[in-house]
Amino acid sequence: MSSPKLKVAIAGLGRMGARHALHFHTMTPRADLIAVSSPDPKELAWATRNLEGVRTYLDYDEMLREEKELQAVVVASATIVHAEQAIKAIKRGLHVLCEKPLSTNPEVSQAVVTAYRASKTTYPNQKVICGFSRRFDASYRDAYQKMRSGLIGRPAVFRSQTCDKLDPSGFFVQYAQFSGGIFVDCSIHDIDLALWFFGEDSVVKSVSAIGITAVSPELRKYNDRDNALGIVEFYGGKIAQLYCSRMMAAGQEDSTEITGTEGKLAINTQPMSNLVNIYEPSGIRREIPPHYYGRFREAFITEANEFTACCLDNTEPPFRLEGAVAAVKIGCALQESLITGKKIEFNEIGQRIDSAADDATPLTARL
Amino acid sequence: MSSPKLKVAIAGLGRMGARHALHFHTMTPRADLIAVSSPDPKELAWATRNLEGVRTYLDYDEMLREEKELQAVVVASATIVHAEQAIKAIKRGLHVLCEKPLSTNPEVSQAVVTAYRASKTTYPNQKVICGFSRRFDASYRDAYQKMRSGLIGRPAVFRSQTCDKLDPSGFFVQYAQFSGGIFVDCSIHDIDLALWFFGEDSVVKSVSAIGITAVSPELRKYNDRDNALGIVEFYGGKIAQLYCSRMMAAGQEDSTEITGTEGKLAINTQPMSNLVNIYEPSGIRREIPPHYYGRFREAFITEANEFTACCLDNTEPPFRLEGAVAAVKIGCALQESLITGKKIEFNEIGQRIDSAADDATPLTARL
Amino acid sequence: MSSPKLKVAIAGLGRMGARHALHFHTMTPRADLIAVSSPDPKELAWATRNLEGVRTYLDYDEMLREEKELQAVVVASATIVHAEQAIKAIKRGLHVLCEKPLSTNPEVSQAVVTAYRASKTTYPNQKVICGFSRRFDASYRDAYQKMRSGLIGRPAVFRSQTCDKLDPSGFFVQYAQFSGGIFVDCSIHDIDLALWFFGEDSVVKSVSAIGITAVSPELRKYNDRDNALGIVEFYGGKIAQLYCSRMMAAGQEDSTEITGTEGKLAINTQPMSNLVNIYEPSGIRREIPPHYYGRFREAFITEANEFTACCLDNTEPPFRLEGAVAAVKIGCALQESLITGKKIEFNEIGQRIDSAADDATPLTARL
Amino acid sequence: MSSPKLKVAIAGLGRMGARHALHFHTMTPRADLIAVSSPDPKELAWATRNLEGVRTYLDYDEMLREEKELQAVVVASATIVHAEQAIKAIKRGLHVLCEKPLSTNPEVSQAVVTAYRASKTTYPNQKVICGFSRRFDASYRDAYQKMRSGLIGRPAVFRSQTCDKLDPSGFFVQYAQFSGGIFVDCSIHDIDLALWFFGEDSVVKSVSAIGITAVSPELRKYNDRDNALGIVEFYGGKIAQLYCSRMMAAGQEDSTEITGTEGKLAINTQPMSNLVNIYEPSGIRREIPPHYYGRFREAFITEANEFTACCLDNTEPPFRLEGAVAAVKIGCALQESLITGKKIEFNEIGQRIDSAADDATPLTARL
Repeated sequence: MSSPKLKVAIAGLGRMGARHALHFHTMTPRADLIAVSSPDPKELAWATRNLEGVRTYLDYDEMLREEKELQAVVVASATIVHAEQAIKAIKRGLHVLCEKPLSTNPEVSQAVVTAYRASKTTYPNQKVICGFSRRFDASYRDAYQKMRSGLIGRPAVFRSQTCDKLDPSGFFVQYAQFSGGIFVDCSIHDIDLALWFFGEDSVVKSVSAIGITAVSPELRKYNDRDNALGIVEFYGGKIAQLYCSRMMAAGQEDSTEITGTEGKLAINTQPMSNLVNIYEPSGIRREIPPHYYGRFREAFITEANEFTACCLDNTEPPFRLEGAVAAVKIGCALQESLITGKKIEFNEIGQRIDSAADDATPLTARL
Repeated sequence: MSSPKLKVAIAGLGRMGARHALHFHTMTPRADLIAVSSPDPKELAWATRNLEGVRTYLDYDEMLREEKELQAVVVASATIVHAEQAIKAIKRGLHVLCEKPLSTNPEVSQAVVTAYRASKTTYPNQKVICGFSRRFDASYRDAYQKMRSGLIGRPAVFRSQTCDKLDPSGFFVQYAQFSGGIFVDCSIHDIDLALWFFGEDSVVKSVSAIGITAVSPELRKYNDRDNALGIVEFYGGKIAQLYCSRMMAAGQEDSTEITGTEGKLAINTQPMSNLVNIYEPSGIRREIPPHYYGRFREAFITEANEFTACCLDNTEPPFRLEGAVAAVKIGCALQESLITGKKIEFNEIGQRIDSAADDATPLTARL
Repeated sequence: MSSPKLKVAIAGLGRMGARHALHFHTMTPRADLIAVSSPDPKELAWATRNLEGVRTYLDYDEMLREEKELQAVVVASATIVHAEQAIKAIKRGLHVLCEKPLSTNPEVSQAVVTAYRASKTTYPNQKVICGFSRRFDASYRDAYQKMRSGLIGRPAVFRSQTCDKLDPSGFFVQYAQFSGGIFVDCSIHDIDLALWFFGEDSVVKSVSAIGITAVSPELRKYNDRDNALGIVEFYGGKIAQLYCSRMMAAGQEDSTEITGTEGKLAINTQPMSNLVNIYEPSGIRREIPPHYYGRFREAFITEANEFTACCLDNTEPPFRLEGAVAAVKIGCALQESLITGKKIEFNEIGQRIDSAADDATPLTARL
Repeated sequence: MSSPKLKVAIAGLGRMGARHALHFHTMTPRADLIAVSSPDPKELAWATRNLEGVRTYLDYDEMLREEKELQAVVVASATIVHAEQAIKAIKRGLHVLCEKPLSTNPEVSQAVVTAYRASKTTYPNQKVICGFSRRFDASYRDAYQKMRSGLIGRPAVFRSQTCDKLDPSGFFVQYAQFSGGIFVDCSIHDIDLALWFFGEDSVVKSVSAIGITAVSPELRKYNDRDNALGIVEFYGGKIAQLYCSRMMAAGQEDSTEITGTEGKLAINTQPMSNLVNIYEPSGIRREIPPHYYGRFREAFITEANEFTACCLDNTEPPFRLEGAVAAVKIGCALQESLITGKKIEFNEIGQRIDSAADDATPLTARL
């Protein structure tokens, strides 16, 4: 007789959904993947081949209705339906792990938090988290613990980048229609890390951004860029610098530095795929992970296991859902600044104070 | 309804045995850990607490007798009983993953191979492998594939080290009574890698070794040393250099270089625990894994999964058991050279040709 | 009989002046250091002890008058007199190597260029350069050549930092009174590099900056900060990110990345003092240079030799003086943005287009 | 009026001689290069073009006779005449910097020391050193000071390599006729470092070596190899491991590790030409120096300046000439072991104790 396992379903079987499905199916001993849904029959065919014993659904709602024993849902569908699917699961009392971002729109993101808060009165043990995978990465956690232990004094300057490998297929252009823009899609991770390292109650004071389309001018029609730089000021004497790009030659380059009054912690500033160095006539070379997943696979598996454990054991999630809204809000403001060229300012309770906001819906809300 | 899983038992629940047990229990989806044995009641109590649903035995033989559905055994007990336990399992037709070394004695090691060969006539699908964990490490595998693809031309010079962190508790002195000596205990990995990279049919031509007791002079009473250097010549123009130590300050330092006529591959020559660098007044620092397991945890999990797969699917094991005997033989010869100060030579079919061998049992056989 | 040597004088014997004096005295074979000037008798006493055979002057003007054979002057005095001393030497037809910045004020900087242009009609072979030491650094030069050879495609994103080691003595606060601010003092190097790598005709489109006083709140009284982040947009689809700090724990950290459409070049992103790594119980550590000079000593010596050669051989200087004005202008705009919180914009011929400029002298001009 | 300078001549203008000439001519302010000799008119023509004001001689003896003011000679000619030329200069009371090795023969090397000792009675201030360039390298010096300060406890294990870039021209085969063999030519540096780090009174107890001809089988006719591994035992519980090669793909790879009871110092175990990293589709790459001089140029310049200073100021040379004989002796023993396959042993006063030595001149003496 074995311990009860968490009965999990996955919504969405695209690139990330398929990975989540495999992680919960084979690398999460305390979870039992029982169902998956996707509107794409090809993805369901993949599931039938690769996820033995797991039921498949073309319709998410049907899955929720039919799977009476379901306890938790991983929302890994298209970003556009993240919030809607998450809210439906929340309302049924299910635990939810929702892929980032909750939405490309801050208000919609907030609606997920609101639904969760409402649901908690009925389901006090319910857990809802946003899948910020880097929070589960061993290196980031080690750095965070070192910072918390006082190793670098008081943290003051945060610098981080999420830079994707150049994809000459044009994928990023198609993707830009729905991604919310490069700051919302890529830098959301860095923003979440800034909030983690600076404290989740940090209030943003201003954001400014600039960008270019160095390799994909077509991005402009979706109000996006392929390289962008942002600076973010927080109340309380903290500043952050972000870089996001779709143009890296060598592979995925996601690195972070947190500088305090007495030291600095650097994460992945010397990227590498593994511990091999190649000595050849052109010098010494090492390879780096081509994609995000190559860098963070272990973190995703840890995420699956820890999400499962906190649902089964009714322990605190590793971080609060509210931060995911703050991250979307900052990401959207950066994206807006990127496109309008305006600096955007906020008061100490996080409300926009620029006059432009009076007479216009924010750009990002129109996307 | 799910696929059949491999029913596995673990013999021995010491440091390595407990890890194997956890890997097969929680990180090996196609395996079902059903039983463990240990002569130590404390270890069994640990198993009861941590290995839910797994039966425990004080007696290995009883476990073999009682567990009628058992298909595979992982021998992770004290080195002294590796061969005996492996042979018993082999004779019952069970698959076996035996921790390294098979034995500290080449003849006893050979007996395991002999038993396996005999058993294959009755159990043609039986798999028996020796747990050379580095063969499952992603970096070593990447390097091996790169070498095989021709990236470095013809491999010619192999250099490798297994260097443990200094343990001031005296553990290594106690351990030396049974370990077979530093070349058999530590360098066995490097020797196995040399045979892998140079080809498993490589025949050793000579070995020479020197060593010291820089921190643990008590090791001398067990004919051991705490730092040793060896050189190994193979027929066919290949040479190897080994370093083993129990004195590293920073942590486990296991690195390897394979130099070919057109390039070199280096594995872990810049050791690190993770991707964090710490900037502080004394400079830039990174931590390194304190122990072997910290470096090779992922490899052990891969080992568990691949062993399981090759048993279930009746595919070829990743390497042949015979190599484990060759590795012990070379390790014992190095250890003998370390103690006697003599160079030991072999003919082209691997027989010792030094006159000393005529009139004396090899030193290592007497240990 | 030997070749004629360039007869050189140094103005200023502070930290940098003394170094220039030694470089020209002992490490520049084709130069002959004949005189130095400093208003500080202690510095002249140092010169008497360390610069054998070199005449000393308390008064710069007197030195120019008395040294009839003088051919070149190195202006390494306080920033406040750089321009004045440089212009006096220019008017006498002397070659000039002026330490950076020409001035903390763009107009004053421009006056040096204007004087030089005027002087060229009388002294067509005269050479005047600004001492941007990194232009002479072997690593930067190698990176520049690689970029020019097409290795990274078209350069698009420039990221650079000049970060000083924390100096708990309060030096930086005193220094801030005259330095022009952290962007003018530190980032001037990075700005010059951006102009070098992007092309010296690059026209800045906008600058934005933010900053904090994490360790030295006293800096605020001089309109300065101890950590600042800036972003700079250039016409033609190029962007730059700057970081300057007075708070590094480990030492001087000056690094640069130039990302192009096909690759990236990184300079000193893994800083180190030398090739030594220290393995100790806390991990693996390397030291880094504590000060700017420790990182760039070789570049200064190269600068001395190349300046000497271009004067003696009447060859083109390695870069044009005009760039030094552009760098000051950008640095001042960043400093202004840092203090005012406003983004500053420029039209395609480099004129400020923000309305604030109409009714107010720029902040930096008032410093 | 300036301080007197050391009047220096260079014997030999081959690869190393020309470099020494330039260093003393332009980078050694306290030295005055007055003459050079070479039997090769082409080399003298080079000197005429590049060493302004320096007199040239086809005949070394004539140079010594004619240059009445000469104070010091740098012997940088072919190894075969090092000792003879050094002794001639010693007998005239000149200071001598002799390139390594003094000779490929220990007895001939000893003759230089004997001549120096005899000469000291007449010329008590005379300085004679062997040009072990690594002793002047900033990284080695830093490591040595750190070791001396106790940072790694008691040094016990020394590992070092001198590995040249593959030269497909066949140069190394021609060179092998006179080089003394790979251990005498390459490893002599590592042996000297071992004596430095372990203490110059260290007495060797045994040496063993093995080697191959992986790329240049023609080397066998000169009793040489292109890759060789050696182990050296010293009395007093110290051991060393050497690797020498002519087959590196990426460039010159000279690295050293010194492990003590409490830590390790590693020098150049991550070789690099400069501080540039190149990010490109195949990964991250750095270049390394192609040749010995690229790695040690600064050390050679320091050597020139320190040799000059110790002659002019009558201070102690940085290390004693006797060590150069010990290094040749160990190098020759390793080379002999490499060829004969025998381990060579020495008693505690450094005399060979193997029976073979009774009836035969050592192999190396016959080269």
